[in-house]
Amino acid sequence: MKQLTVGIIGAGRIGKVHAQSIANFVPGARIAAIADPFISDETAAWAKGLGVERITKNYLDIINDKNIDAVLICSPTDTHAQVSIEAIEAGKHVFCEKPIDMSVARIKQVLAALEKSPVKYMVGFNRRFDHNFRAVRAAVETGSIGKVEVVKVTSRDPNPPSGEYAARSGGIFLDMTIHDFDMVRYLSGDEIEEVYVSPGVLVDPAIGEAGDFDTAVINMKLGSGALAVIDNCRRCAYGYDQRAEVFGSLGAALCDNDTQSSAQVWSDGGRTGEKPLFFFLERYMQAYATEVTEFIDAVVNDTPVPTGAQDGLAAVRIGLAATISAKEGRPVKISEIEA
Amino acid sequence: MKQLTVGIIGAGRIGKVHAQSIANFVPGARIAAIADPFISDETAAWAKGLGVERITKNYLDIINDKNIDAVLICSPTDTHAQVSIEAIEAGKHVFCEKPIDMSVARIKQVLAALEKSPVKYMVGFNRRFDHNFRAVRAAVETGSIGKVEVVKVTSRDPNPPSGEYAARSGGIFLDMTIHDFDMVRYLSGDEIEEVYVSPGVLVDPAIGEAGDFDTAVINMKLGSGALAVIDNCRRCAYGYDQRAEVFGSLGAALCDNDTQSSAQVWSDGGRTGEKPLFFFLERYMQAYATEVTEFIDAVVNDTPVPTGAQDGLAAVRIGLAATISAKEGRPVKISEIEA
Amino acid sequence: MKQLTVGIIGAGRIGKVHAQSIANFVPGARIAAIADPFISDETAAWAKGLGVERITKNYLDIINDKNIDAVLICSPTDTHAQVSIEAIEAGKHVFCEKPIDMSVARIKQVLAALEKSPVKYMVGFNRRFDHNFRAVRAAVETGSIGKVEVVKVTSRDPNPPSGEYAARSGGIFLDMTIHDFDMVRYLSGDEIEEVYVSPGVLVDPAIGEAGDFDTAVINMKLGSGALAVIDNCRRCAYGYDQRAEVFGSLGAALCDNDTQSSAQVWSDGGRTGEKPLFFFLERYMQAYATEVTEFIDAVVNDTPVPTGAQDGLAAVRIGLAATISAKEGRPVKISEIEA
Amino acid sequence: MKQLTVGIIGAGRIGKVHAQSIANFVPGARIAAIADPFISDETAAWAKGLGVERITKNYLDIINDKNIDAVLICSPTDTHAQVSIEAIEAGKHVFCEKPIDMSVARIKQVLAALEKSPVKYMVGFNRRFDHNFRAVRAAVETGSIGKVEVVKVTSRDPNPPSGEYAARSGGIFLDMTIHDFDMVRYLSGDEIEEVYVSPGVLVDPAIGEAGDFDTAVINMKLGSGALAVIDNCRRCAYGYDQRAEVFGSLGAALCDNDTQSSAQVWSDGGRTGEKPLFFFLERYMQAYATEVTEFIDAVVNDTPVPTGAQDGLAAVRIGLAATISAKEGRPVKISEIEA
Repeated sequence: MKQLTVGIIGAGRIGKVHAQSIANFVPGARIAAIADPFISDETAAWAKGLGVERITKNYLDIINDKNIDAVLICSPTDTHAQVSIEAIEAGKHVFCEKPIDMSVARIKQVLAALEKSPVKYMVGFNRRFDHNFRAVRAAVETGSIGKVEVVKVTSRDPNPPSGEYAARSGGIFLDMTIHDFDMVRYLSGDEIEEVYVSPGVLVDPAIGEAGDFDTAVINMKLGSGALAVIDNCRRCAYGYDQRAEVFGSLGAALCDNDTQSSAQVWSDGGRTGEKPLFFFLERYMQAYATEVTEFIDAVVNDTPVPTGAQDGLAAVRIGLAATISAKEGRPVKISEIEA
Repeated sequence: MKQLTVGIIGAGRIGKVHAQSIANFVPGARIAAIADPFISDETAAWAKGLGVERITKNYLDIINDKNIDAVLICSPTDTHAQVSIEAIEAGKHVFCEKPIDMSVARIKQVLAALEKSPVKYMVGFNRRFDHNFRAVRAAVETGSIGKVEVVKVTSRDPNPPSGEYAARSGGIFLDMTIHDFDMVRYLSGDEIEEVYVSPGVLVDPAIGEAGDFDTAVINMKLGSGALAVIDNCRRCAYGYDQRAEVFGSLGAALCDNDTQSSAQVWSDGGRTGEKPLFFFLERYMQAYATEVTEFIDAVVNDTPVPTGAQDGLAAVRIGLAATISAKEGRPVKISEIEA
Repeated sequence: MKQLTVGIIGAGRIGKVHAQSIANFVPGARIAAIADPFISDETAAWAKGLGVERITKNYLDIINDKNIDAVLICSPTDTHAQVSIEAIEAGKHVFCEKPIDMSVARIKQVLAALEKSPVKYMVGFNRRFDHNFRAVRAAVETGSIGKVEVVKVTSRDPNPPSGEYAARSGGIFLDMTIHDFDMVRYLSGDEIEEVYVSPGVLVDPAIGEAGDFDTAVINMKLGSGALAVIDNCRRCAYGYDQRAEVFGSLGAALCDNDTQSSAQVWSDGGRTGEKPLFFFLERYMQAYATEVTEFIDAVVNDTPVPTGAQDGLAAVRIGLAATISAKEGRPVKISEIEA
Repeated sequence: MKQLTVGIIGAGRIGKVHAQSIANFVPGARIAAIADPFISDETAAWAKGLGVERITKNYLDIINDKNIDAVLICSPTDTHAQVSIEAIEAGKHVFCEKPIDMSVARIKQVLAALEKSPVKYMVGFNRRFDHNFRAVRAAVETGSIGKVEVVKVTSRDPNPPSGEYAARSGGIFLDMTIHDFDMVRYLSGDEIEEVYVSPGVLVDPAIGEAGDFDTAVINMKLGSGALAVIDNCRRCAYGYDQRAEVFGSLGAALCDNDTQSSAQVWSDGGRTGEKPLFFFLERYMQAYATEVTEFIDAVVNDTPVPTGAQDGLAAVRIGLAATISAKEGRPVKISEIEA
């Protein structure tokens, strides 16, 4: 089997997750280089320990390396589109962290580059690779619950970001809900056509002062006529709450949170089990390994990627529609947003 | 202890439930009479067996009976307001099945009658007396989950009504969701100020032809700024689905469906437990007994009823606002509805 | 339908439970009399309120009343056998609380009386009428789990009795485990042939000083070769623990405790649900109503009682074998005990 | 940090598990060599891919390699003791798969070798490193459940071995229950002093013809007076059943099986979740990685190993006592077995 040679651009939290996944779980790939302008000596040593051959501060060393087949873009969001285009034009297969960009116009530049190139382009919607959501999707796909009628997603983060972060995040709908929009599309196998948002600032006034929201209930209408609802909160006292339910004509498929163990203590105070796993690195660690494995497999076997650039575009358009809905207090059709 | 003498107007399904509850569980009351223009010989015999002293086809026999202290109104919805007023004016305490009426104007006539009378008036929002929802409310009330931020109610009926029923029901929001609106008010201890409905006809086109909906996701904004969402469906393959969740600054309180038993079978096909109890008579039988007991107690002890006429009015106004929202595709403030 | 006329002998806790069940739930029976030498004015008034026609201190008033068809024996255990025989000889159908007696010889006197009489005789193994255990038994009976291989019963009481009570109780195996022995027979549909007990005094030394035990693990071999195990404790910090599991060639059927509600609170401290219902009156209230209903039905319809005198004998013989096993530290065959 | 150099003796299923764990998760160790007389070309290539430097058919190449610090013994059980002694005498730290040997005498030879050597010796009781059992143990250790009174372990394998395997396995108590004996010791923090076995041949007569059993309920008395019970079956229709419960004066700590996901399907047939993970490789994969990590840590940091040779000896002695109990039908004290 041909071994794929990959480069990782960005050595922050998610870049490291992918480096470790590839080193430990993906025998079909080796990491030729990792690039980060601010890479610390500690991270460099850690990467060397994983077997990464080259550490560089300049991502162009990766783009220009003829021996590198594929690139994982884990740099800040506002660089995703440009680096994507450079990598595509250099003939690299690309795995890009979500979102591709906050701007539809820039995403369309990426799409245009892809039209002229045979490379694979995958967007990192990691939750589609989670064991729980996959099992729910499988129940929907095999027809166990009949025709989809209502999709429900609960998604709550353990701790709110600062008002400062909120101000430059693109807003909760593009920063946080974007994952949940993709989850509704994934679980239903359908397209979101209209969105209505009930937003709130219930956790931290600083988030409101930054022009953003920290709590929201979001209604959607899907192409088939099915309905969907997401509820989000930026703070959750019991940790990372990630649940979904799909209700259909023959029943429902649903999943609960994961916990560190199944242990319970029964005492005079009741029957107590564990809180959900703390946050996304705990909950989705296996999903990150699966997604990057599937990316490598798609490249090696020349099969379609599970989450392509169009999925990245769709989620951003819905996020933009939600942002308008929250601002204007009305339902917004996705078709109002530039396609 | 003084024993209360009650009369029951209406010997349909719910009238019988209350008769049986009083006969078996409410030593503080005796049923002097039951009235129903269409009462069958069988029902009359059953009532006699319970110890009901008088069976009549004319409800005025009850209204005019000086020895009767309190009346339970279990007749068709469109008679509730008129019978309520007659009973109030005859000096009877009244327990009225929900809704008082579909029209705000007529409910206000009941309120006007109550202003001139010292009698107790209770509306039968039976779900407030359910053990599961009470336990959730208790957790909210004692502060276990902090400040309320999001209320979620799932409410699905096992089988859809006919299109014919839908046409004369007042619509799903006044017929079915009205219970869930009251549940949001009960669980949050707050008022609903705005409602937005995503409606669907996904179960039976005949319901759509009747101008009604069979599926809906309903967003609400509460006085405190908290958000709420109800999801309804008129058909549920696994039975009566009645769940709620209240999410707050310190955690969440939530409840599941009841089942006939806790038994599970573990086999090659997985681990299978029972479906929810089939429908409202199974799920809420104990709640019906509790609500009528609390009505009798409120009368006997001259304490406030748990669910008064204002609660009945509030739920109808929200239902009317939801009906407009579904028709016009926009959020509707409850203040738009006549108060 | 002929209405059965019953008398209740004993107006303690369990006598009252049966009186209330019959008055509220069993239209096919009316209570002609209740007898108790120590009946209080309060209990007498309560009984009158239920519609009991005669209150007496002398149980012979019931035995000798020609109009009484059936008798419920709820008096102290050491009177069960004698009253049973008197009632049988007077031609009454008998429902007798468990155990019939602690002595096989006296139980055999009851059996001898029954051989000369056509009356029904039922022993009050209330747990067979519990919704959870019935659902497990149903799964076994319908073949869902294949051939039975291992039966497991967990049975723990919330609070230990006094050493004084233990001394005159007949010992834990005849006082407490006797229910669990019957449950093993019920769930397996098989006979216990050998028993081995690991006993302990872990809760209260006074119980040990009384010659009894407060904790035990009890192994059994069944006629089919299947195995069974009971674990008992006289104290349980989280309340009344009543669970069972039947494991077979095709799977397992198992049940959990009941709780007052399904509510959970999720917080920083974990996810907490309610404790089991406190004790037998809470857990088995519905089962008591069901068992007495089935007794009345068996008499009225002349069908077999679900739990007969032979079931009562079997449980006592196993309890006696367990007592020997605990004392002698060896497995004891039931055939060692007089049959 | 000093990196430990290890050799793996035996390249069967469990040898491979450890090789992969070390390669992927244990940066503090590198695998210098793997030895197996029957190693296939495929396995050799796989090992090279993991970065194993030397593949050999002769385990003495590892024992005699001065550069190797520690040895993992994953060869057949009957070679464990001899290879252990050779490794100890060559100054290697040893991680030995369970059991050390079936014979107390031979285990004592290993203990004697250890007395003359400063090396670490760890026995692979992998279940002690499972997240669920660790959480139960943690609850016991922190006092959440008070004084331990009853320990319960359920342990069922998905598919029975052949009669041929049973004949040379040392019997179910040394082959299968040995893990559960260790679990009782681990969860209770106590010693088993007496054992009584109710054995059965309920799954496959060939196992009985081989002189072995396929089903058993095993009672134990612990040093503190606490009781314990294990139930085993060699076949389980729903997969690998691995549960435990510790009951104490203040409550109980218990754990359930793991499943591939938390997804449920609710339909007309009930509410169905997944079966347990299929078998030990699925259930304990993470535990294998944790145990070998803790072995490496103990060597590198010169701290005690979590499961030493005395733990290995204790489990074998209990297994031998259980074997006698099953044969002789009586409780057997562990002190009857050579120490």
